[in-house]
Amino acid sequence: MLQSLEIELTSNKKQQPAADQLGFGNHFTDHMFIMDYSTDNGWHKPRIQPYQPIVLDPAAKVFHYGQTIFEGLKAYKTDDGRVLLFRPHKNIQRMNRSNERLSVPELNVDVVIEALKQLISVDKDWIPTAPSTSLYIRPFIIATQPQLGVAPSTHYQFIIIMSPVGAYYTEGVNPVKIFVESEYVRSVKGGVGEAKTAGNYAAGLKAQEIAKEKGYSQVLWLDGVHRKYIEEVGSMNVFFKLKGVVHTPALNGSILDGVTRNSIIQLLKHWNIEVIERPITIEELYKASQNGELEEAFGTGTAAVISPIGELNWQDDVLIINDGKTGELSKKLYDTLTGIQMGKLEDPLGWMVEATPVNV
Amino acid sequence: MLQSLEIELTSNKKQQPAADQLGFGNHFTDHMFIMDYSTDNGWHKPRIQPYQPIVLDPAAKVFHYGQTIFEGLKAYKTDDGRVLLFRPHKNIQRMNRSNERLSVPELNVDVVIEALKQLISVDKDWIPTAPSTSLYIRPFIIATQPQLGVAPSTHYQFIIIMSPVGAYYTEGVNPVKIFVESEYVRSVKGGVGEAKTAGNYAAGLKAQEIAKEKGYSQVLWLDGVHRKYIEEVGSMNVFFKLKGVVHTPALNGSILDGVTRNSIIQLLKHWNIEVIERPITIEELYKASQNGELEEAFGTGTAAVISPIGELNWQDDVLIINDGKTGELSKKLYDTLTGIQMGKLEDPLGWMVEATPVNV
Repeated sequence: MLQSLEIELTSNKKQQPAADQLGFGNHFTDHMFIMDYSTDNGWHKPRIQPYQPIVLDPAAKVFHYGQTIFEGLKAYKTDDGRVLLFRPHKNIQRMNRSNERLSVPELNVDVVIEALKQLISVDKDWIPTAPSTSLYIRPFIIATQPQLGVAPSTHYQFIIIMSPVGAYYTEGVNPVKIFVESEYVRSVKGGVGEAKTAGNYAAGLKAQEIAKEKGYSQVLWLDGVHRKYIEEVGSMNVFFKLKGVVHTPALNGSILDGVTRNSIIQLLKHWNIEVIERPITIEELYKASQNGELEEAFGTGTAAVISPIGELNWQDDVLIINDGKTGELSKKLYDTLTGIQMGKLEDPLGWMVEATPVNV
Repeated sequence: MLQSLEIELTSNKKQQPAADQLGFGNHFTDHMFIMDYSTDNGWHKPRIQPYQPIVLDPAAKVFHYGQTIFEGLKAYKTDDGRVLLFRPHKNIQRMNRSNERLSVPELNVDVVIEALKQLISVDKDWIPTAPSTSLYIRPFIIATQPQLGVAPSTHYQFIIIMSPVGAYYTEGVNPVKIFVESEYVRSVKGGVGEAKTAGNYAAGLKAQEIAKEKGYSQVLWLDGVHRKYIEEVGSMNVFFKLKGVVHTPALNGSILDGVTRNSIIQLLKHWNIEVIERPITIEELYKASQNGELEEAFGTGTAAVISPIGELNWQDDVLIINDGKTGELSKKLYDTLTGIQMGKLEDPLGWMVEATPVNV
């Protein structure tokens, strides 16, 4: 399909922001990728065009019934000028699992990866190189059929936009304070918690705002049925080091199958550190802490990579982890993962995919 | 605020569809209402303009994090030429409750109602008059800030579009067949099930598709915790008549507080028919059916008004209700409610609001 890729280059390049002014998701590159879908023609008309507004009928289903899927991944520029993508197939494969849950048509993974490489090639000058920076890539799908019946859309757009980013949390890799949420629920088995779809994030905003007012960066979500099993932290997966062994909630249908989560598990196993995926209760965690067995805690996600947790507040019972400092393992995982991603360290598990610009 | 309402009329009126070609949500009137929000200026710049595409940055938060709220209500034209709205304040008040849950800024209810009346006034020729037709009104809010951090948007648009509609179900007021969903879940306490937000509808599409393949119109949703309490049917509230008494699931945080639901309860009480809001299990319903106590079942919602249920399938155990025919009470409720809405019957509970066109 990509043999028919149309490329329209901008005649009006934007000024790029300074490396220390990036923030997260504020600035966008000069171009974007778009591809259309209709029931009759499938995915068609792949094109790279200048970054520009999307024009939709007010009745487009995305505004009313929420059929929208997204992904997030990053590209890095190495010291020797190569461009690397971190496990991009995992993201697009997950996008297809999200699509399946939300009745959105399947993508051809290879076509999307090739489109992404082409887009990066066009905007290669936008990849920042300062420490902790990268090019954040946001593929997403929206339902565009202008019709108000509650039924899957007949038309969609698949779009990729890209943003040069710095650290996701203003704290950087310093520990964050987390509020354990007891009232609101992110998702439940049988729902869409495993899918990367907009509704999951909208549902979490209120709890996040309340936590922020109390001085906490994010919430820790408990399961919707028993209200005791740990699910995620903010929009990240979560890990705990207990007596030298790393534990993380098992994938249960309501937890996102994170690419960083999967990579941390693989890396730990590669290092012969035991890692166990299982249901973990919040009560167990507090007891472990009292017994001095809770050594480290951290969130994992594409945006922040590793985010150490220094404090938990569960119903006003405050738990300090590792004296509120970044743990040794958390730091080692962060340094190793970002080192591999930036091409500074060996890539023992074959994660990085070269997207070195071709001539377009 | 509406003193500053700007009205731009179209110079290119569309051809209106024939009454028997309407369907639901396929055609839109000549104009729309828009109002902007920013953190700095609040809701501002109310305007009526020709129906036209919405232009959004690809990073607009509505596409990524799902902050979107909608409502649905109807306008009717009476035989003597008046225009009536059915309980419009209830819808906009509910919109504010949804807004609160999704961290979307509050609307001024009176301003919205006035805007709606003005919009109807401009497009008054679009209100259909054939039996079972009406003008469906879709107010909605979308988050427009172009920023990829997971946080409430700083900018929104509030929009009203309108669609002349016929019956929502092709079955009309004839009984529908319903599949009791055991795998997928619509919502759970602590989630956003009580809010009218896009994500709830996207989450339900897959179950609906599977039910359709099996020959059922809609699914009946069970609760996400115990998987036994009845919540909603499709995107409607649900009622059961058991031994002359009407029962409906109590509002519990995961069920939509339907305007039609509320009206049915009021109407039944007005008729001195007992109606009980309480938790109802699917098992109880099957037992009642076996004992000959389940007399009628019906869904209620703005789109379909009353939708009789003729058959339930719960794990392949098929339950036929009232011989698969529309029940006497269901019919009476439909006739009374639509009679009041169309201005053909007295309005004993003071529901109808005149939106008779003023000169614009």
